[in-house]
This record gives sequence, structure tokens and C-alpha cells, in this order.
Amino acid sequence: MRRAVVLLSGGLDSYTAAAIAQADGFTLHALSILYGQRHAQELEAARRVAAALRVAQHLELPLDLRAIGGSSLTSDLPVPEDRDLADATIPSTYVPARNTVFLSLALGWAEVLGATDIVIGVNALDYSGYPDCRPDFVAAFEQLANLATRAGVEGARFRIHTPLITLSKADIIRKGLSLGLDYGLTHSCYNPAPDGRACGRCDSCVLRAKGFAEVGMADPALAR
Amino acid sequence: MRRAVVLLSGGLDSYTAAAIAQADGFTLHALSILYGQRHAQELEAARRVAAALRVAQHLELPLDLRAIGGSSLTSDLPVPEDRDLADATIPSTYVPARNTVFLSLALGWAEVLGATDIVIGVNALDYSGYPDCRPDFVAAFEQLANLATRAGVEGARFRIHTPLITLSKADIIRKGLSLGLDYGLTHSCYNPAPDGRACGRCDSCVLRAKGFAEVGMADPALAR
Repeated sequence: MRRAVVLLSGGLDSYTAAAIAQADGFTLHALSILYGQRHAQELEAARRVAAALRVAQHLELPLDLRAIGGSSLTSDLPVPEDRDLADATIPSTYVPARNTVFLSLALGWAEVLGATDIVIGVNALDYSGYPDCRPDFVAAFEQLANLATRAGVEGARFRIHTPLITLSKADIIRKGLSLGLDYGLTHSCYNPAPDGRACGRCDSCVLRAKGFAEVGMADPALAR
Repeated sequence: MRRAVVLLSGGLDSYTAAAIAQADGFTLHALSILYGQRHAQELEAARRVAAALRVAQHLELPLDLRAIGGSSLTSDLPVPEDRDLADATIPSTYVPARNTVFLSLALGWAEVLGATDIVIGVNALDYSGYPDCRPDFVAAFEQLANLATRAGVEGARFRIHTPLITLSKADIIRKGLSLGLDYGLTHSCYNPAPDGRACGRCDSCVLRAKGFAEVGMADPALAR
């Protein structure tokens, strides 16, 4: 069994990406970053998802990006609501260099594990336009990984797997359902109420609702 | 005044790199990572150096890489002593993906500060052969930075400054002395005694001693 490090947020996308990698034969080493995110309860979802997937290992790493701030998710900036997703402006929920930081940590862990495969659930179709979710970013990181590491210098070729990158949210959900996933375990909302309920108005909620609507089913997380 | 984020470890190299950037007209925002390193006392040196340079800001960010391990600096692996520095093997003091992680965090902070300049004191001449200290790694990170960020997508061009990359340790010291630096403030040893004294036998000590010997002066840190 080949090992893969998978970035697991607790959301719908990373759960599906992890399950696809598992179906492809990888043993999963899940990495979740407690980055001081407003929606820290996604970490509880990440634990539920990791348990459901029976990952080999689930590492939770604290890294408080509120010290850097600059995002609605890591500062007091409000989370935008009811945004027009056709608007090409990158919204304030963008966290500066987040996926670069996360992939770097995944890379370090992969190297220690003797793994060369890293899985990330980025999506460049039904998404908020974050630069670090696009194919050219991923390709550049893959190149960097081979130059950045002892393993790379010694001939290993790292691969960043992005199984969702060209899928619509509905197709992601369909794929996950075909793999038997329980999306009731996941959490996506950027700005949940104190009782944990999703706001329904942030980009993440809107994209998720659109996906479930297109699939023609109720979001099981809303029934919780 | 243009702002630059400088990675400040508390060692001789990052102090010199920071001072060069300052002499070039940058206002310095210093970033030190408490990564669970064996030689955590370098953080105290980083504070002394930051104060001496009168940096605009000094951010200390905890990120415990012992959770990942894989290095003599972040696990129980012993620190190699009296190593032949002509040996091209990458030693166990290599920390997997460390400079990728550190540069990513510097990138995120730079973006929040509205800065596009990042300074790192890497050196590819009198060094231990770490892959993430070489010019091709730095060039690849620079490319990535422009794809990874909102600022990059909006046209900013990030620059990773490596003013020491082709210098010998002696030349680094000469440059720093010409800028009036007090190397007595710094700490380089990977494996200091409990009383803080440098071991004199790790790569970092050996390279530093070689540099001061070539310059023909006593290391002021040893006189402390």
C-alpha cells in the first residue's frame, strides 16, 4: 500500500478527495491544521471524517494564522454574505498563502513518512476564485516540492493529487455518494452560529447548497 | 520606505541578511518561527538581533514541527559531530521542507503587510547541502509566490532576496562587520549545552569557526 498525506479540513471537498485517494489504493495520513480559523468546529468534522475513513493516522497541527491575519477567517473582518459568485474579485475569506503553507507542511510530513503523494481537495470550478486553488499554482508547487526536499534531490517525484480540481460541486457530491460517503459528517460554513448551525449565506454555504440542489437531494448536514 | 519580511533565526546569517536589506533601504518586519528546534535558545538571540536592528516589528510564531519530526533538530536523532563538510550527503539536521514552510509563512505575512520583498539568509557555499538553501529552490519559490497569492494574481511580483547565497562564511562575516554588526548577539550551535555554550562540533559551529578563522578574529559569541 502506498501512503499519501491528505489535507483534511472537515469540509465536503477534502472528505471526497481523501475517499477518492483511498479508493485508488492509498493508505491515508490525514493532516488537519488548527489555524485559528473562525470556523474551528470544522476540526471536529475532520475528526469524524478521519474516523469514518479509518485513516492510518490523523495529525492535528496548531499554527495560529491569526498572528498574521488579513482574512475574514483569521481576523475580525466580516465574512461576506450572499456574494455573487460570478464576481471575479477574490473575497476577503481568502487566507494569504494558506494552501502554500498547508502543502508545505504536508510535504514535510510526506517526506518523513517516505511518501511522495499529497492529496488536496482544491476545486477551480465551483469555488471562490482563490488563487491557491488553481491548476497553475498546484503545478508550481509540485515543481517546488522536488527542489525543496532531500527526497526530491535524491530522485523522488512528488505528486500533488487534486482529484476535484475540474469538477462541479454537484459532481463532487455525486462522486462521494458513489463511494458511500456520509456528508452529514462534514462542516463547510465559514461563519457558523454559536450552536454550530451553518449560516447559509457565506460562499461555502452557497456553493454547497447549489451542489446539493443540482444533485436533487437535501444536504444531510442540515438535518443534524 | 519599502517593507520587507525577513526570516530571523538568531543566527549569524539571518542577522547579516537582515542588515543588508536594511542598508538597502527596507523597513524590516522580522519573522521568527518557534518550531520546536533543539536549539530553541536561538529565539533569544533573534530577540537580541531584532532589538539591535530596531526592526519595525518582530513576530514570533509557534509551529511545533516535532509533530512531524524527521530531523536531528526536531526529534531525538543525534546531531552529527565533526562531519566532513566535503561530504555531499545531506545530514540529519536537514528539517523536511523547513524553508518551504518558513517562506510560505513569510509570504502570507508579506501579503498582509502589502510587501513584496522577503529576505532569507540562505547560503549555498559554506553550508550543509540542504536542498532548500540553493538558488533553484529559491527561484521556484519566487515563481510559486506570484501564483499563490491574491497580490501575485493582481500583478505584484514577489522577490525572495538571498543576499548571502553565493558568499563564503568569511565574506558574510566581513560584510556584517562592515555594517557594524555585533555577532556576539547571535547563536548558531545546533546542540548547545544546557548552559547555552556552543558544542563546537556540529556543522553550524564548524562552519562558523571556519569563517571567523578565515577573517582572523575571535568569535565574539564564544567570549560571552
